Amino acid sequence: MPLPVIGVVRTSHRDRASTPVQSSVNRAEHGTLEIAPEYQDGLDGLAGFDYAWLLAWLDRSGETGPAPLRQVPFLLRRRRREIGIFATRGPRRVNPIGLSLIQILAVTGGTVSFAGVDLLDQTPVIDLKPYVTRFDRPPGQPRCGWLDAVDIPEGITPRDLAP
Amino acid sequence: MPLPVIGVVRTSHRDRASTPVQSSVNRAEHGTLEIAPEYQDGLDGLAGFDYAWLLAWLDRSGETGPAPLRQVPFLLRRRRREIGIFATRGPRRVNPIGLSLIQILAVTGGTVSFAGVDLLDQTPVIDLKPYVTRFDRPPGQPRCGWLDAVDIPEGITPRDLAP
Repeated sequence: MPLPVIGVVRTSHRDRASTPVQSSVNRAEHGTLEIAPEYQDGLDGLAGFDYAWLLAWLDRSGETGPAPLRQVPFLLRRRRREIGIFATRGPRRVNPIGLSLIQILAVTGGTVSFAGVDLLDQTPVIDLKPYVTRFDRPPGQPRCGWLDAVDIPEGITPRDLAP
Repeated sequence: MPLPVIGVVRTSHRDRASTPVQSSVNRAEHGTLEIAPEYQDGLDGLAGFDYAWLLAWLDRSGETGPAPLRQVPFLLRRRRREIGIFATRGPRRVNPIGLSLIQILAVTGGTVSFAGVDLLDQTPVIDLKPYVTRFDRPPGQPRCGWLDAVDIPEGITPRDLAP
């Protein structure tokens, strides 16, 4: 782990294949974020926000070794189509940093309860930033590349998408 | 630099105090991202997206030493109000990772031209992810904490906000 860890995520998931691929397609599930005691003062003010970006270190993101620069995303497994990793949201990356949009339900001491789970239990967290509409919402309806042509059912997991 | 760097950002800014505080409040300015030759294949497919998240390592984010857990954000300097760092988007963090929403103008070889600049020239980039509306846009009008009560003029810089 090359970076300081501010806390860990607690979820019901122990197995990557049955963990939903994105927090926003699994809004119904709840998890908690346990911030380490030495960083808990940094949560002051977070309860006023409805959403936050959770930056996680995806310590179990796949096979070992360098991430291939082109990969078949889970959502394109059946078509076996390769995409450059900087045009995917997959977990195997040069730096395995996950960006999850979580809905904040409560901030109690050092614990953040949230909705929207796409992380394995005990995943290390490296940053937490408030979602700010003015900063984070582009105008209009942006083109979203290959993802515009993909159906993304609620709660879908890599196992559901097996070839 | 504890992580592999995938490229650098080229912008007109050499001085933190005169660099706009967020990419989304400085959409008119253009910059480029130069991906290192060994990672350029990872850009395949990115041109189909209008926006992307640029994760930068903020190597000149402020004073040295550990980041204080409560800080006065640039936007609250005149009120001198302290906020927990996980409820701010400021650059001095436990892990100085910046999250910038950039508008992709062109992808040419290893160069990504973009609009929306909030980074110093030569800032190292550690990841690039496509913006996906389904994943990144929360429903409705989320509460945005202390930022809901702050006026954020276009192009504003720390210098403009000096106490």
